[in-house]
Amino acid sequence: MKLIDALNWRYATKRMNGEKVPQEKIDRILEATSLSASSMGLQPYTILSITNEDVKKKIQPAAYNQPQIVESSHLLVFAAWNDVTEAQVDEYLRNIATTRSVSEESLAGFRASLMNIVNGRSKEQKYEWAARQAYVAFGTAITAAAIEEVDATPMEGFQPELVDEILGLKEKGLRSVTILAIGYRDTNNDLLASAKKVRRNIDQLILKVA
Amino acid sequence: MKLIDALNWRYATKRMNGEKVPQEKIDRILEATSLSASSMGLQPYTILSITNEDVKKKIQPAAYNQPQIVESSHLLVFAAWNDVTEAQVDEYLRNIATTRSVSEESLAGFRASLMNIVNGRSKEQKYEWAARQAYVAFGTAITAAAIEEVDATPMEGFQPELVDEILGLKEKGLRSVTILAIGYRDTNNDLLASAKKVRRNIDQLILKVA
Repeated sequence: MKLIDALNWRYATKRMNGEKVPQEKIDRILEATSLSASSMGLQPYTILSITNEDVKKKIQPAAYNQPQIVESSHLLVFAAWNDVTEAQVDEYLRNIATTRSVSEESLAGFRASLMNIVNGRSKEQKYEWAARQAYVAFGTAITAAAIEEVDATPMEGFQPELVDEILGLKEKGLRSVTILAIGYRDTNNDLLASAKKVRRNIDQLILKVA
Repeated sequence: MKLIDALNWRYATKRMNGEKVPQEKIDRILEATSLSASSMGLQPYTILSITNEDVKKKIQPAAYNQPQIVESSHLLVFAAWNDVTEAQVDEYLRNIATTRSVSEESLAGFRASLMNIVNGRSKEQKYEWAARQAYVAFGTAITAAAIEEVDATPMEGFQPELVDEILGLKEKGLRSVTILAIGYRDTNNDLLASAKKVRRNIDQLILKVA
């Protein structure tokens, strides 16, 4: 579907029908998400793609029992790095050097900029920065799903500490920041499926400075 | 352009050629952005679309003199609400009632959820939440520009307090959170124009819980 049509078609689906999304669509949504822009290119987050029904059932009470958690085909949990460390930056620099066939020495200036972030910010500030980058990827995933005509529910309503515990995220140096349930709308049971989209007047949302 | 091709084509453009982006492309990028998902549908941010060259010149030193600020066609400043108030929520509820032809009374439950956010969080927490919503829109804008084959530079490297002052954002109850320069790449002067895209290995970025 074309972008604007897709964005008009999508809505925060409240009920899904449990149908599985074909793997090739999931692959395209995740590939698009992996191509999201991120500050300095670092991608300081990990996305858990959950299809295990037992794990979904465990997460559901931590998300105020919202039905899409278990009615979805795939549950994507966006988890930001809980810190940004020198080791992570160096792993990223090795990836750049290999991908672009350049020396690590040639990246010294760029390394210094990244190390300014690593050493110049508190752990909590780095986590907040990583969380915002995860939100860029989240925005891309929502858009990519809509283009594939796959429904998606962006979900902030959950208890991150509980979800982190269920998924063992702390041990992985991660903190869950937002969830995207992916699947197909249950038109009969979702009152919002036919509701008109509400948006701020574009002239109030976007101010021209000409 | 198709989504994945577009995301592979795009990169954080370091030099732009000053060429103007046709109005119909700008309109589609902004319309897509206005259709972005946002928590509870509130869209707690405003986007300034700057084409005024004097204003761009004033912003440039507040953004470490990055050239794209003045070489861009349009400079989009994403500014989050610095608070989320009862009055803003009620304006939103009136918008829903009008758009969907429902009574405001029928939205009482939804109003209560929104008021939990207004009254249950500190001003700074509400701003951080609004900023994350702005990042979803930012992600959509980056994607929409790429689909239109328009270059874009996501820019976090600027001094928000200075930009807020230049644009009078405080008086509008806003704080700048991120910038997107939109225009066309200057292939001859941008070393990164031909660089290979570097991304984390998808099996590390996305963990399957099957």
